[in-house]
This record gives sequence, structure tokens and C-alpha cells, in this order.
Amino acid sequence: MNCFGKNIVLTTFGESHSEFIGGVLDGFPSNFSIDFEAINSELQRRKTGNFSFTSQRKENDCAQFISGIFEGKTTGAPIAFLIKNSDAQSADYEELKNIYRNGHADFTYQQKYGIRDYRGGGRASARETAVRVVAGALAKQFLATKGIFIDGFVSQISRCHSREGGNPLKNEVIAGLTRNDNTLTQAMLQEIETAQKNSNSVGGVVSCVIKGVPAGVGEPIYDKLQARLAYAMLSIPAAKGFEYGCGFESAKMLGSEMNDVFVCENGKIQTKTNNCGGILGGISTGGDIVFRVAFKPASSIAQKQQTVDIDGNRQEYKIHGRHDVCFVPRAVPVVEAMAALVVADFIVQ
Amino acid sequence: MNCFGKNIVLTTFGESHSEFIGGVLDGFPSNFSIDFEAINSELQRRKTGNFSFTSQRKENDCAQFISGIFEGKTTGAPIAFLIKNSDAQSADYEELKNIYRNGHADFTYQQKYGIRDYRGGGRASARETAVRVVAGALAKQFLATKGIFIDGFVSQISRCHSREGGNPLKNEVIAGLTRNDNTLTQAMLQEIETAQKNSNSVGGVVSCVIKGVPAGVGEPIYDKLQARLAYAMLSIPAAKGFEYGCGFESAKMLGSEMNDVFVCENGKIQTKTNNCGGILGGISTGGDIVFRVAFKPASSIAQKQQTVDIDGNRQEYKIHGRHDVCFVPRAVPVVEAMAALVVADFIVQ
Amino acid sequence: MNCFGKNIVLTTFGESHSEFIGGVLDGFPSNFSIDFEAINSELQRRKTGNFSFTSQRKENDCAQFISGIFEGKTTGAPIAFLIKNSDAQSADYEELKNIYRNGHADFTYQQKYGIRDYRGGGRASARETAVRVVAGALAKQFLATKGIFIDGFVSQISRCHSREGGNPLKNEVIAGLTRNDNTLTQAMLQEIETAQKNSNSVGGVVSCVIKGVPAGVGEPIYDKLQARLAYAMLSIPAAKGFEYGCGFESAKMLGSEMNDVFVCENGKIQTKTNNCGGILGGISTGGDIVFRVAFKPASSIAQKQQTVDIDGNRQEYKIHGRHDVCFVPRAVPVVEAMAALVVADFIVQ
Amino acid sequence: MNCFGKNIVLTTFGESHSEFIGGVLDGFPSNFSIDFEAINSELQRRKTGNFSFTSQRKENDCAQFISGIFEGKTTGAPIAFLIKNSDAQSADYEELKNIYRNGHADFTYQQKYGIRDYRGGGRASARETAVRVVAGALAKQFLATKGIFIDGFVSQISRCHSREGGNPLKNEVIAGLTRNDNTLTQAMLQEIETAQKNSNSVGGVVSCVIKGVPAGVGEPIYDKLQARLAYAMLSIPAAKGFEYGCGFESAKMLGSEMNDVFVCENGKIQTKTNNCGGILGGISTGGDIVFRVAFKPASSIAQKQQTVDIDGNRQEYKIHGRHDVCFVPRAVPVVEAMAALVVADFIVQ
Repeated sequence: MNCFGKNIVLTTFGESHSEFIGGVLDGFPSNFSIDFEAINSELQRRKTGNFSFTSQRKENDCAQFISGIFEGKTTGAPIAFLIKNSDAQSADYEELKNIYRNGHADFTYQQKYGIRDYRGGGRASARETAVRVVAGALAKQFLATKGIFIDGFVSQISRCHSREGGNPLKNEVIAGLTRNDNTLTQAMLQEIETAQKNSNSVGGVVSCVIKGVPAGVGEPIYDKLQARLAYAMLSIPAAKGFEYGCGFESAKMLGSEMNDVFVCENGKIQTKTNNCGGILGGISTGGDIVFRVAFKPASSIAQKQQTVDIDGNRQEYKIHGRHDVCFVPRAVPVVEAMAALVVADFIVQ
Repeated sequence: MNCFGKNIVLTTFGESHSEFIGGVLDGFPSNFSIDFEAINSELQRRKTGNFSFTSQRKENDCAQFISGIFEGKTTGAPIAFLIKNSDAQSADYEELKNIYRNGHADFTYQQKYGIRDYRGGGRASARETAVRVVAGALAKQFLATKGIFIDGFVSQISRCHSREGGNPLKNEVIAGLTRNDNTLTQAMLQEIETAQKNSNSVGGVVSCVIKGVPAGVGEPIYDKLQARLAYAMLSIPAAKGFEYGCGFESAKMLGSEMNDVFVCENGKIQTKTNNCGGILGGISTGGDIVFRVAFKPASSIAQKQQTVDIDGNRQEYKIHGRHDVCFVPRAVPVVEAMAALVVADFIVQ
Repeated sequence: MNCFGKNIVLTTFGESHSEFIGGVLDGFPSNFSIDFEAINSELQRRKTGNFSFTSQRKENDCAQFISGIFEGKTTGAPIAFLIKNSDAQSADYEELKNIYRNGHADFTYQQKYGIRDYRGGGRASARETAVRVVAGALAKQFLATKGIFIDGFVSQISRCHSREGGNPLKNEVIAGLTRNDNTLTQAMLQEIETAQKNSNSVGGVVSCVIKGVPAGVGEPIYDKLQARLAYAMLSIPAAKGFEYGCGFESAKMLGSEMNDVFVCENGKIQTKTNNCGGILGGISTGGDIVFRVAFKPASSIAQKQQTVDIDGNRQEYKIHGRHDVCFVPRAVPVVEAMAALVVADFIVQ
Repeated sequence: MNCFGKNIVLTTFGESHSEFIGGVLDGFPSNFSIDFEAINSELQRRKTGNFSFTSQRKENDCAQFISGIFEGKTTGAPIAFLIKNSDAQSADYEELKNIYRNGHADFTYQQKYGIRDYRGGGRASARETAVRVVAGALAKQFLATKGIFIDGFVSQISRCHSREGGNPLKNEVIAGLTRNDNTLTQAMLQEIETAQKNSNSVGGVVSCVIKGVPAGVGEPIYDKLQARLAYAMLSIPAAKGFEYGCGFESAKMLGSEMNDVFVCENGKIQTKTNNCGGILGGISTGGDIVFRVAFKPASSIAQKQQTVDIDGNRQEYKIHGRHDVCFVPRAVPVVEAMAALVVADFIVQ
């Protein structure tokens, strides 16, 4: 199903090479003034071509809103928007028509649906994440009015990372390519350039901090705040893992190290440390919500690869189309958008 | 909300110290013969007291089915079942009534609901996972008729683990405490015993393999198979992270290493390696589905801890009740149960 | 599926001859003091044996709450309850085991599920509505704190009714058998007694008024307030029709007659008349919400009937078990309960 | 919420005077060849201007499909489509900007949302039903491949109707204005013309028959086939009532008259009569599913009407815009479309 959310529901549509991709955002608060500039800024963060190592497809994306907004304000009616697919070069894909590209969804879609729009990955293309960014930008604007802010950054590219031992996630968020500190960013760039030279690709990790969520947000048992975040993050193409707070490191910690001690400061009960990542029992503590998402390297690489065609015959192929050596910096606004949708969904009730 | 699933829906209820915990399983196939022994075996795997380091609360759990089954077969009506809370010692908790225990949901529940059943953690108690195990046991029986089998095992306790480099998850599943190999299990036990001596607790990782899922299972975009698994796993108490296939390791890999090459063997198209963990684009490849879940150490430890009470006054407390030094082995059947519910939900359509 | 509602979700289980019927109410407000007496009073209104013409099955129903309530107050955890099936006489149904009773769900359940619990209609028995009444009683208590009250009454038994021309529904609600005026009630009783003498059954109509819903409640387009009420009412066994406001009479009216003129009285904008039944565009006007539900006569009658058995052979049968000549008075609390669940679901957000 | 359905989900957007209205249909079967001509034929049945008494707004509607279809076949990706609002005359509504039109949703939307797109009723406009017709047309094409066909007709205009006593619904479906017999159609036209002369409007009833649904379709208890149909029909603008089978007439019938006797003909078990309307216990019998939907007269009439403005001041207004004297014939394809969506949703599983 192509819907996301319970109270604020995003429904999306469109393929890599359809005329438009787009979405419908339902349940968004009414009588809310939209900042259209801010939405397009988010799209700029995600677009290709910002760096030499990302796909050279020209996505000068701009959301065209076609309903739900009257004189600049939301009316409570569903907000529909379109993004034009302006630089779709279908011919690039003609030769891959019968090929199952490694690491892509070609084979599994064919198995599920018995048919496949092979142009640019069709519906499975990460092009779809632009729609998430638009909806997330709206959610962020709503959250900002509640004092809630979301910041993601690149915390790892290949073997170069900014996390040590069992410490909680790094909160320094610096603008630029990675939104991380400059020395580290240079080292990360080095990893990417090496991969580019070798006609290869590299993955990485996006970390994210949500500030300002009051205590008491989330649902117990099955619909825990972390469960919804995990669901949201693992829906992003190429995401392979999710952890919050100390995450996988907590498996190595002792109870006495892991437990965050409750204290009362300025009349407010809170935890002194934040190993828990701002969530206990599925519900927010009032502290920062911190989580990390692992991404695999891009499956499309500028090397010859072995595979089979739809008849099972061995084939060799090489991607001539446009692709990313490292898409991780572009994934940051997508991670933020999905986090914004999750939190707004809980908060709007 | 206390419901899980879309086509096969589990609704659960009950607290640590209510008369019963229980569940309602709706949408399960009709005219299906239930193996009640197998259900109770699963409950035995989860129960306390199997090992000296688990809570000594006596949970001789047995599911009492009260509807939906007629002459041993499911009728298509919702299957309701109760599990008696036989060894609930509420008095143990009287002194913790106004205390916010570190690492527990006491504070967040109070913030959300304005009231709290403080006896044994109330609804937030991991006691609730017994209900998941019953429902999961039913799902497993259904899946077995489709040739689908689920096996979990302990792959890490504290710093002792069975995973190297970027290799896919270990598939050797040996019966016993960890369902892992004996040498490793001895080392893991050592970690637990050390923690026990030090009045502390340790966490770990549960790995899980789902065999026999045909290619084409899952949904694209938001309801990807891995997204639902992540949602299910992060709903388990104390889970802090989820990864599938190469998971966080894939962030360090090159595209050429990560990509699984498609081959055709015995007329069946499949991937030669399984770095992807059996899922591409949210949909199963037909290969083994492999994932790992990180668990933090138990928050209840046999040490004095600092905290505050509900008025924000500093307090010191020590847990006298029954608790686990390491609950990770007990989490294995819970992980399997949740995986079974996720896969059955997709397969039953 | 056996769930009802979106924000306050009722999940039910149990069959006519299972040990218990019961339900789980999830999403009900926390920290709310329950009036248990009031719940059992509602069950008394629904039970058999109140009148000579209802089934003589002894249903001295009493809800046993097993979770979600602590020291008399709701905790926010799901509220589970059981009602014992104390006077189930399965033997009565042994001879109907292979018979498809006319007007009942025997045939359709067998077609859908390939199996059937034939004892007393199994899951399809109207016994299940007792669970709705309990949940509805809780919803009513919540609504009362918001100044919302729901009153149903019998407005028609067979050809004897209390509605003329295109007038809106009658609001006089008098206690007793029908909660309608005495003269009319006598005439209705006469209809029932005649049917009883003739070993037959009669149907009727239940009218219902919801007072105190503020303007602005409901959803536009697909989830209109009237659409949810219709969905709720048509889920009641034996319900054959639903109308609100002028209902089917409005098909005969002119626009100038039908339109309710807006006026401003005491500073409050409202409609002068209420032909619309308190809803415009799917959303409440602030006026009384009025609707009617048609019920067919009971299918079980004390006459020989022709039918076929599961092999298609012609058979003759006569119901020896306990059944209602007219269940319409017993349907009033069920209609109210479902209305309460619908409105509470919208209001609780 | 602006979504409809569970397995086949229609999400819609757009207002009377937005640039487009449109929808996203998710969950539709893949690899299905679409007949685009047939879709536009359905839109023609619904459009204004077919008769002298319908609104003269020019809706030469044509659905533009923008995703989910590749080389004429569905791919399993969501099917998005747009319909241009070509003849929207916003200026007509400027003077009604602050007026609450009687019988319309102006007041209730303002109460719910605190803002209102006053142009042509905004989101509450029946213009939105064109989107339902497109989605319904797709559902009909799918159902036709399963041998399921849906036919609606006008069975009542004002006091002129085609139904007598307790007989089941009339099945004669004749093409033309009402799809009913000619004599009756002439009499209905007479009712409409009289209303037109008097600057008034008239309502009516649409009857509908669904043929070919096999026995066993539907869900028990809350999600009964008739409950979903009622929910769907009461979501149509101006619908005031729903009944199936003998409907409200069944309240007057005796059990012995109402019960449909089971027989076995040509090896197939079925009911001899169809008073039940093709559904027992919420599940289809295999017989025709027959139901009726009552519509109130159009609220916009060519007469002066009293009302209040948003400040509560008394105002007089007269609609100068385009409106229908009787929209009931135009409602027939909408009723069919919603029925198709309901049945397809059950069948597709």
C-alpha cells in the first residue's frame, strides 16, 4: 500500500518516468499558512547534481499544489501536489528491459506483479522520495509551531564515522555536505572520491535528532514511537538498519551503565543522561529523540556486472544512465521528512 | 493502540498483575486444526525460571482458548485466549508506588495517562510478550503448512558475539540456551554469571532466519517487508535496534561487494549470495530472510539506584522483586513470534 | 474483521455456546472513573426474559472486567471484559447440525469458512450484541461528561408506527417496553401477541436521538457522520435499513420544504427546523442527530419450515430452542450502544 | 479522511474550483488491461447538461491517468488520475462568501475547520463524485472479469415510484434517463418539470442490483457486506437513507413471509425468493444483491431563501449559479461506482 500515517496520511503515486510524481496529504491541520519557499528549499537539499558524485539527472524539483490550499492557507481538505518528471530519459533503459539488475527491485517486482515498468526502476525508483520530502516539509512547519525541530546529518560514509564506543549519538549539526564537522567531512569526501575513481559506490549512516517533543508522546505495546520510526526509516530505499539511543551498542552495556537516572531540574523531571534516546516504554521522555539509519551503497555502479535476464539466461550489463556514487547526503532530508511525518502524526491528535 | 497486523490482527490486553493477560487473534484461516501442545511448548521457551539467571516469578503459562475453535478446528471467528497471572505478588511493588524506576516506563506512562498501575510495571511489563508467543505459535503452525519456518538464536551476549566482518548472519541454529554453538554459549554464560555476581545485568542480540518465503511477498514503498519486521521488532520491550541482511555493516561495504548477483539454478532465478537479507525493494527474493534485533540490558538490577519520586524528590531504591540478569534467551521465541505474525499477515491474503 | 472504531476500538469475540463472550475496548480515555452499576443496567435492558415474548434463555448477564482498570479507574490500557454464557443448551441444536435454517447465516458461514459452529448460530448469534452493549455503556459514560446523551425508542412494530408524513422523528421517549407513548405501546403489544398466537414473529423500527453533539463533529467525503452511523447500524443482526433526518421521506419533498433555514438564537447559529437530522455535509450542525433503523422479524419461528441440508436434500425443521417473537425492544440498547461508540470515536480525538 | 476502502483504496482530492480534482487508486490488480473508453462513458452518464433540468456547468470530463499504467496495463503501482475543472466560475460565488446556504455544508465546514473555500461549495461540492465514478469504472472492469455486474436505476422521483408493498426491488433496468420503464419515466419527468416551473427541486430514490457475486463474500459482525454498502452510499452527497432487500418494508412483515426458503436447483443451494437482498449474516448468498438509496432534493433552488451570515445577521439570498432541479439520474452512476468499489474490495483479497 502506498499510504503512510494514521492521523496525517500521505498517499503517493508516480514512477521514475511517469509524467508526474506526487502525493496527497490528508489530515493536516486546517487554517495553517504554508511557507512554500521552505518546501522548495527542502527539495533542493535532496536533489541530484548538488555534488559531482550524485546522479546528473536534472531534478529542478518544485512542488505544484493543486488542492487543499485556499488563499495560502490549508482548508482541511486533502493537500494534493505534483512534481514534474522533467529529465526522464527512458531510452537509457531500453536495453535493460529484460535484465534483472543486481541489488534492485526488478526481479521482486516482476515476481509480485507479473509486469514491470522497467524505465528507471519504475515505482521502485528513489525518485519517489522527493514526494516524501514535500510532505515532510509541511509536517516540519506544523511541528515548528509546537517547538519541535528535526536535524539529520551524515555520521558515517563507508569506514569513516563520527561515533565512538557506547556514547550516545553526536549532536553537532554543521551545515554543508554532511552537516557534520569539517575534518570528518573531508575524510568522508575522500572515501567517496576513491569509490568514484574505482567505478564503485559507498554507503553510510544518517543520524537524526528530534528536539522539543514533550514527555508522553507515543503509544505503548505495538505502536511504540521507536517502532513507528523504525517502520518509517526502513521504508526508505536502501535503508538496512535502524537503532535509537545506544542502539546496537546497548547490547554490550551493563544495566548500571545503560540506565538513565531520573533527576528533577528547574522543576522538570528528566533523565540525566540519554542512553535511552528519548523514549521509554514506547513513549517520549521529553529528552532528545536520537536515532541512526544505515544505508547500503548504491546498487548501480559503473562496472560490468553479471546477472540473468527474465528467462534465466546469463547476461552481462553496465549502467550507462545517471546514478549516485554516494546518495547518503541526499538521504538526510528524506530521513528528516519521515521523522517529521511520524512525530506530526502523533502530535496532531 | 494494542492491535498488531492488517489481515491477521492480534489484539492484546492485560497487565503484569491483572487476573489474566490475553489476546484475540482475528483473521486466522478457518477450518485449521490447532496443535495445542506446540503452543504450550513455545510458552515454555519464553517462561521465567528456565535458567538460574532469569526471574524466579513462576509463570507456568498455559493458554486457555475461549472462542473461535470448535472441535479442535478454527471456525473463522476470532480466537480469544487467556493466560492466568498465577504468581503475581503485588505487595512487592507497594514501596515503588511513587518511584520512577530508571529505564522503565513508569515516568512516561504517568505523563501520558495521568495514572499508572504501578504493580510490576502494569501494562508495560514484558509479561505481555507471553500473549505474542501464543499468537505467534498459531501463525507458525499456519506458515508451516506453506513450507515457511522461522528460527531465532542468541548471536550476542554483552561483548561476546558470533558475527564477523561483513558476512551475512550465521545460520547455525543449535538447540539449548542460546540455540548457538556450544563454545560460544559457554562464553556467553560466563558474561551472564559475571554480571549476576556484580548485581548487574547484560543485553545482547537475537538473530533470526525465515526460510521458505517465496519470491514476491511484501509491499513496495511504505509497507516494505523489512519495514514491517522493523516495526514488529522495535515493539518488543527493550529492543533498541533492527537490521536485516548486512545491516549496519553494509554502510562500510562497496557496491560491488554488496550486490548479490542473480543466477539461475535448477530453473529458479535467485541471488548467489544473500547480503540483501532476502528482500529487495521491500519484497522477498525467495532467499532466506535474515535479521538481527539488539536488546539493552534489563533495567531492574540488584543494586541501589538514584531516582526521583512523582513529586520530583530525590530517592534511592533497590529492586527486591524478581527480575532477569539476562532476558535475551527468553526474547528468542518473542522475536520468532513477531516475525511469524508479520509473514503470516502477508501470506494469508 | 471483528474490530469496530478508529480511535476507540472495540474488538469482540465469543459465540453463542462458547464459555464466554467478551470484548477489548482500546483507546478509551484514561483516569476515568467507571460506574459499573450503569453498565449492568444497560445489560438488563437488553437481556432476554424481560417480556413473555422474548427468548426464555436465561441471560443474567454481568460483565467481568479483567484488565485496564485499576482502583476503579481506567489506566489507558485496553479494557477487557468477559460475559459468561451461563444457560447455553447445546443439545437443542444437535438436530440442526446439518440444516440450513432460513433467514439465518448457517449457509453463508459454511460457504465462507468451510466449517460452522452450529450451536445457537455460533458467532452469528445476536448473543454477540451483549458485548456491544457493555462497550457502548462505557462510551455513554464518557459522552455524558461532554453533555452528550443518546436515547432510542421503538417507533414501529409491524404495521403499527408513530411517524407521520414528512415530519422529523418523534422525540418523546417514555420509559417502559418501547420507550414510546402508552396508547401506541398497547397497540404494538397487540401486534406481538397476535404473532405469538400464530407461531410467527414481527419486526419493527428503532428510532434514536443523540442530543448535545456540538457543531463540527464528523468527517467530510467518505467518513461522514451519517456514513459511520449507517455502517454501525447495518452491522446489527437483522437490521435492514437506515435513514437519518427525513430519510426516505425526503425523496418526496421539495427543496423548499426540505431546507432547514439558518437562524441565530441567543448568539448561536442553528437551523430552525431539523429535517437534515443534525448533519450537513457529513458534519454535525449542533442540532439533535436523529435516525431510524429497520429490523426484519426474527427468522426463528415456532412453525415447520422447508429448507435443505448441507448436501442439498430437502428437509423440514421446526425450532424447539428459545427464540424471540419480537426482539425489537431488546434492540434499542444495542442501537444506542453503537451510536455511542460512533460518536465517542469522533469526540475522543 | 479522504480514503475509501481497505484492499483497494481510493484517495481523492480537489475542490469545486481547484485546478483539478483527482484520485489515487491503490491495490488494484496488476497486469490488467484498462478500457479507457469505458471509463469516459461512465463519466458521461454522470455529467451535467445531459438534461435540461441539470446544472448547465460544462463538465466535459475526461480522466487523465498519470501513473500506475504502463503500455495500457496496470503495473500494481498506485493509479493516479486528474480531471480538469474547466468551467469553474468563481465569480458566481463571491457574493455568497459570507453566507451560510441552507442545506449545504457551509456552516458545518466553517465550524469544523475555522476556514472555508466558499467557491462552489469547495471540497463539499458534489463535483467530487466524478472521481468516484472513474475509480468505480476501474472496479467495474475488474468485477466484469469475475462475472459480476452492477446496474442502478431511478426507482422514485418525488412521489412517483416503482415499488409496491413488500415485494423485492424491481429488476427491470431500461436504458435512458432513469433506466426504468417508459411510462414511469414520463411521469417522473412530469414531476421534475413541475418543480422546475416552480423554481424548486425534487429528490428521489436510486435502486441498484449487483449480479454475480458468489456465495461467501463479506465479513461477519462489524464489517458486514450491507454495512459497507450502507457506509459507501451514505457517503454520497444528499443521500438520506439506505435499505437492502425488503428494507423498511420488512419491519411490517411476518417472519414466515420474510424468510427465504433454501432450495437446491441444478446442484446449487440458493434461496427461492430474495427478500434478504442477497445477504445473510453479512455474507452474500449467491443471489442478487439489491439495495436502495434515498436522496433529498437539491438544496440550491431558484428561489429567495432566508439565512444568516457568518456573523449571525439575517440575510436573504438567491442562487444565481448553475444547479440541478433533480440530480437523481446523475446519482445512478455514482451509486454504481461506490457499489463496485465495495464489492471489488472484498473480492480482490
